[in-house]
Amino acid sequence: MRIGFLGLGGMGLPMALNLVRAGHEVSAWNRTSSRADAVRAAGGQVAGTAADAAEGAELVLTMLADDAAVSAVVFGDEATEGFLRALPRGAVHACTSTISVALSRRLAQAHAKHDQGYVAAPVFGRPQAAEAGQLTVVAAGAPAARARCREALEALGQTVHELGDDAPAANVVKLAGNFLIAGMMEALAEAFALGRKSGVDAAKLLEILNGGLVRSPLYQSYGTMMAQERFEPAGFKLSLGLKDMRLALAAADAAAVPMPLASLVHDHLLSGAARGWGDRDWTAMSRILSEAAGL
Amino acid sequence: MRIGFLGLGGMGLPMALNLVRAGHEVSAWNRTSSRADAVRAAGGQVAGTAADAAEGAELVLTMLADDAAVSAVVFGDEATEGFLRALPRGAVHACTSTISVALSRRLAQAHAKHDQGYVAAPVFGRPQAAEAGQLTVVAAGAPAARARCREALEALGQTVHELGDDAPAANVVKLAGNFLIAGMMEALAEAFALGRKSGVDAAKLLEILNGGLVRSPLYQSYGTMMAQERFEPAGFKLSLGLKDMRLALAAADAAAVPMPLASLVHDHLLSGAARGWGDRDWTAMSRILSEAAGL
Amino acid sequence: MRIGFLGLGGMGLPMALNLVRAGHEVSAWNRTSSRADAVRAAGGQVAGTAADAAEGAELVLTMLADDAAVSAVVFGDEATEGFLRALPRGAVHACTSTISVALSRRLAQAHAKHDQGYVAAPVFGRPQAAEAGQLTVVAAGAPAARARCREALEALGQTVHELGDDAPAANVVKLAGNFLIAGMMEALAEAFALGRKSGVDAAKLLEILNGGLVRSPLYQSYGTMMAQERFEPAGFKLSLGLKDMRLALAAADAAAVPMPLASLVHDHLLSGAARGWGDRDWTAMSRILSEAAGL
Amino acid sequence: MRIGFLGLGGMGLPMALNLVRAGHEVSAWNRTSSRADAVRAAGGQVAGTAADAAEGAELVLTMLADDAAVSAVVFGDEATEGFLRALPRGAVHACTSTISVALSRRLAQAHAKHDQGYVAAPVFGRPQAAEAGQLTVVAAGAPAARARCREALEALGQTVHELGDDAPAANVVKLAGNFLIAGMMEALAEAFALGRKSGVDAAKLLEILNGGLVRSPLYQSYGTMMAQERFEPAGFKLSLGLKDMRLALAAADAAAVPMPLASLVHDHLLSGAARGWGDRDWTAMSRILSEAAGL
Repeated sequence: MRIGFLGLGGMGLPMALNLVRAGHEVSAWNRTSSRADAVRAAGGQVAGTAADAAEGAELVLTMLADDAAVSAVVFGDEATEGFLRALPRGAVHACTSTISVALSRRLAQAHAKHDQGYVAAPVFGRPQAAEAGQLTVVAAGAPAARARCREALEALGQTVHELGDDAPAANVVKLAGNFLIAGMMEALAEAFALGRKSGVDAAKLLEILNGGLVRSPLYQSYGTMMAQERFEPAGFKLSLGLKDMRLALAAADAAAVPMPLASLVHDHLLSGAARGWGDRDWTAMSRILSEAAGL
Repeated sequence: MRIGFLGLGGMGLPMALNLVRAGHEVSAWNRTSSRADAVRAAGGQVAGTAADAAEGAELVLTMLADDAAVSAVVFGDEATEGFLRALPRGAVHACTSTISVALSRRLAQAHAKHDQGYVAAPVFGRPQAAEAGQLTVVAAGAPAARARCREALEALGQTVHELGDDAPAANVVKLAGNFLIAGMMEALAEAFALGRKSGVDAAKLLEILNGGLVRSPLYQSYGTMMAQERFEPAGFKLSLGLKDMRLALAAADAAAVPMPLASLVHDHLLSGAARGWGDRDWTAMSRILSEAAGL
Repeated sequence: MRIGFLGLGGMGLPMALNLVRAGHEVSAWNRTSSRADAVRAAGGQVAGTAADAAEGAELVLTMLADDAAVSAVVFGDEATEGFLRALPRGAVHACTSTISVALSRRLAQAHAKHDQGYVAAPVFGRPQAAEAGQLTVVAAGAPAARARCREALEALGQTVHELGDDAPAANVVKLAGNFLIAGMMEALAEAFALGRKSGVDAAKLLEILNGGLVRSPLYQSYGTMMAQERFEPAGFKLSLGLKDMRLALAAADAAAVPMPLASLVHDHLLSGAARGWGDRDWTAMSRILSEAAGL
Repeated sequence: MRIGFLGLGGMGLPMALNLVRAGHEVSAWNRTSSRADAVRAAGGQVAGTAADAAEGAELVLTMLADDAAVSAVVFGDEATEGFLRALPRGAVHACTSTISVALSRRLAQAHAKHDQGYVAAPVFGRPQAAEAGQLTVVAAGAPAARARCREALEALGQTVHELGDDAPAANVVKLAGNFLIAGMMEALAEAFALGRKSGVDAAKLLEILNGGLVRSPLYQSYGTMMAQERFEPAGFKLSLGLKDMRLALAAADAAAVPMPLASLVHDHLLSGAARGWGDRDWTAMSRILSEAAGL
């Protein structure tokens, strides 16, 4: 399949390589072009612009940082021509970035207007999972468009959940997932602060509670980082976590759903950002709770 | 070992029976005496008062509803003589109830004054786990006292975590555990409300998020109840969950630890109680979030 | 002075009339033109478009509903040509609407690019205060631009606070003011719910607390509406209050200032909107608190 | 009238002196007796114990620090005999301290059992207001008991609000009042933090918002302290404010009224206490908000 791949960051590059290895004809583009060398070395092509990568493609996959980056690449901005006009009729754009529900809806409409398909296909997983082709993908969009990109998505993830026809629903799921993690961090951070001031070591508390009660590998890995207070290097930056809570709250606001816990974790991440911790791991949020307790 | 067992409710009765089966000489007491028949049938003895059950015992285990019940049974009230004076010097009281940190500290002091041992030994698990001897026990107290009751506690639970010399620390762990569950419920409830108003079914959202991300049997069971909105019969009553959040907040207040998420779930449980849902399962708390979203 | 006045709603019409009465040459425009008749009757002119009203004006005042309306009138949209190009060099745009800090900053930049002045001049007060020329105006922007519109603003309000050179600062003050009111409503609503469930009538509670302690006419008028639970007709619509809390939270987010009380009142207003109360007075927010208490 | 006055702290002493000056026969007692000299100098008597002061009195007024102090003085503890038995039948206890709703109810029952009257009569105002006889008093209790102490209460305060027969209702009003102040501080603190990070000076913001909108002397005085960040010497200690928020939350919990803003301010005061600010003025709570914003 002829695939344009846009965005070769920590997540995008291994994803693009997996598509090359799966036998697809990949034409990759990245804003800073040096990242594209690895794609060429693996047998893929490198495009000079996003529009070039989309030219003649059956599918374009985007893995970009945020709404602004996706919007620029699709619709263009002062610096770039977007790929919206270059993408052939009938081709599909599968957007794997974590973007807002509002932008996802706008993309669905814009592609429909150009007789193109659009699938929201956000992914769960860290770069290691991307390398191993073990991401979890959540895909939503018109059935024909989903069918079109199924094989490619399966090359990226061990599980592809298909969610239905309304593309933004997949973005809601992704944001809900990151919110669940943030909520877990908040709960652990408060429990750890209570434990510490009551003579119970955080690591011991985690061992007992996750061992017998919760039994989640997610609690284990996040909880261990928080118990050890090792926030660098970042697995997922606090500034990105903050961005995702903003997107979750924006989706909630638009849907008229009060999410007080989301506001709470947003505020703790925002306070972390205000203190200059934007580049630390987002588990650093737990320091806000410790400091509130005078620890 | 000669064991007095006080409190034969849904948790206490199977625990007492397991001690009988493990070969201990159990003398059991319950405020409403009919519950004691099963103990007699299994080969145990039935005591007329809490003090009688403690008379000559090496160990007294208590499994009672709340602070008031434990306090009455230990110190006595208008209706009952407490067992504090009847318990022999050198014997140990292991308190398995979910009680306040403050009462636990008071018990430690009172038993020490009477040359008795005290172990805080709260348990995690539902009645089925109690029947199967598969509770998780967290035990704290003086080493000698802990040693004294180790065998009995091992007859109750598959895992016994020993936590150190300060008895109330075990109560903190128990309260932190129930708080973690409540925090998880809050996060799921908000995510479900957002999902529902965005066209994503709660069961589907749970399947995706717990399947690939959290992978916790706790999320699975609680999340399923919340997705199905089946709140009766109660696995754990909302009124009891509210009680535990009160105890967690009281411990946090005494330790000068702000726990905003604990306040949040407390408020949602309190609102449930105000609406007359005290006897429903505490997952009914999720209805508060749904209603806030106009669902 | 030649003044273009854009937006003749409940606030804008009396403001425009006051400018006519103060002797200014007013050319007024409104999206639905029937509202302009009163201006003509008073001796003002009526413009066919926003751009016409700005043509040849020394000052343009805008009093429009929200960001979208202001943006459309300044920059244009599918339906309207904006007045940005029509406004003469050296003329000033004084924006009296409650808009976002971000849009205010964008307006400052756009007008500067066109060698025009921009003053953010949001107003406090209801339509009655507008009629009486007793609004409170907060004005910020370059000194020359502020000097240019001083006389006109003084015709609108009994007090004009000049705040400095950075126009968006005035918008922050306006949003902070509406947030203070919302915070007061939250506090009163919680106190009233506690009072009611403790046998203390809300009106009596207000009488005691505002009479002896707070002594604020604002508490008196809002508190009375909340005590009587008369939410219709709306003095200030819940949907507009919600909009302003969104703007306050957006400003706070951009400035990295956690505002947990703002999130709290946002959530209560949002829940009101979710229940279909958008057109009631925003004091209806207190019903959310009453219902939470089972009242 | 023969009046026993118990508690001669910063508030109690000027209150006792006002009663002497109003012509009452006052027998005063204080735990540290040196405080009583001023009463003797003014023409009052000094009692050796609380019980002595109550002996033969028609009315006993208590102005003590907290629940523990009131409870000790009424019911006795290891150090003191309480005055409950010494107070003549038909005499009245008017409790002016800020105590819990629960203790107030217990006092009402205990005095009724001894055929004595009980009036909850908490006061609003600082020591200067006590000196000037300008406190605001809120009195509740049986009509006959209220009638009995009316004259004495009028000697203390410029306004005496009578609230009805249920004594604890007056305590609810007092707690609601202190909660309103705390809520106002939270709102101002958030608004100030937003202002500061947006280039608007706190004092200026206060001037505009309180000047034109709120117009409350309470906002003025508290807001000025917060704007200047002068937290010492304390007008009202943070630790006492924290105590009152605990009492408000306890009353709310017992009445099944979620009060999320009360939880919020409680947490900020608690965090202040955790940082060692218990003896600063409770407006120091605003530092928690400033720090959260990285100020």
